[in-house]
Amino acid sequence: MTHKTISILGGTGKEGSGLALRWAKAGYHIIIGSRSLERAQQAAAEINSQLDIDTARGMDNESAARAGDFAVLTVPAEAQMATLEGLKSALAGKILVDATARVDAKDPKPPTGKASARMAQDLLGPEVRIVAAFQNVPAHALKKLDHELASDVMVCGDDPEARAEVVKLAEAAGMQAYEAGGLDNGIVIEGLTALIIAMNKRYKSKTGGIRVSGIVK
Amino acid sequence: MTHKTISILGGTGKEGSGLALRWAKAGYHIIIGSRSLERAQQAAAEINSQLDIDTARGMDNESAARAGDFAVLTVPAEAQMATLEGLKSALAGKILVDATARVDAKDPKPPTGKASARMAQDLLGPEVRIVAAFQNVPAHALKKLDHELASDVMVCGDDPEARAEVVKLAEAAGMQAYEAGGLDNGIVIEGLTALIIAMNKRYKSKTGGIRVSGIVK
Repeated sequence: MTHKTISILGGTGKEGSGLALRWAKAGYHIIIGSRSLERAQQAAAEINSQLDIDTARGMDNESAARAGDFAVLTVPAEAQMATLEGLKSALAGKILVDATARVDAKDPKPPTGKASARMAQDLLGPEVRIVAAFQNVPAHALKKLDHELASDVMVCGDDPEARAEVVKLAEAAGMQAYEAGGLDNGIVIEGLTALIIAMNKRYKSKTGGIRVSGIVK
Repeated sequence: MTHKTISILGGTGKEGSGLALRWAKAGYHIIIGSRSLERAQQAAAEINSQLDIDTARGMDNESAARAGDFAVLTVPAEAQMATLEGLKSALAGKILVDATARVDAKDPKPPTGKASARMAQDLLGPEVRIVAAFQNVPAHALKKLDHELASDVMVCGDDPEARAEVVKLAEAAGMQAYEAGGLDNGIVIEGLTALIIAMNKRYKSKTGGIRVSGIVK
């Protein structure tokens, strides 16, 4: 089986590096992208060391975007647009997974207006197939590789083939995933982050998540 | 144990009458409210007949709002504001549970702007404690009284005591329920309805729902 290459833009943070670790373990080739080449290479080296492999690499975000079959954006919400600017040609023809959730952990409120992923689509144009996913996967749980994640992934995008590909990526990372309609639906998953934070606070939990029920795939 | 009275405004529809049936079975006194007194009385008679009780009553919406300890609004989204107009004094001092979800089943999209429950709060003023809940409980499953519902309830409201009371109502109806932050969070649960419809369509299901995971109450 030839595995494809996944570039994680902003992949040095907890969520990006956690996803990268799980995908690397599943056999995908991983490129960690960062504004800082040095930090990207360091994060890749940690994955190689943890899994005893040598295929994970670190690059600046634009090189990572060019080199990957898929790109996954896991930067803080306030860095989303700045990170994507200038990546239009690097990402053309590819699937970009946008995990951005515009929810402030200290003052959690549902975002208003367009979905983050729709804003990315407006910026990057129709040549990039954008899918919203992984907005509220608990980052701390991703690195516990033997743990099943107690949180499902709803995958929103306008291109059915791209949605289906991202469902496969989520499954490869050990999550249950479901196609959940068009790109604009992504704002609901962003907003769920605010409710999960509120429930964690109310019930003194750190592991709140959402599961889909009643659907057989 | 003295049970309180729950008035279900717009209680002749599937969701309202399903909730009413479950609450009546749990021992609450039920008032079905409707624009049509005759249909309200008919719906109440069906509940009395099904459970072999005689405590469920039917009234016009305003009389129901005045007579209940709690009011629960389960009208179609387009009737929400018209139903609440004129109920400000009838509902003053009470808890109103708003189950409105502004999602068109034929063209499901997340709502934008304010949460429906926030619009209700703006209309009714601060004397009414509004809580958003039950927006995406599968109506068809409510009447299967021996079924555990495969869908949890996230309860959003600005008044902690009112949220806690509505969690108890949901539990009495056989659902797992969680306090999930302030009233504005209600828009996320409204929007989830669009994703559940999309998943049901994609996976040829009729029973899709959402569960909360990783939280111990």
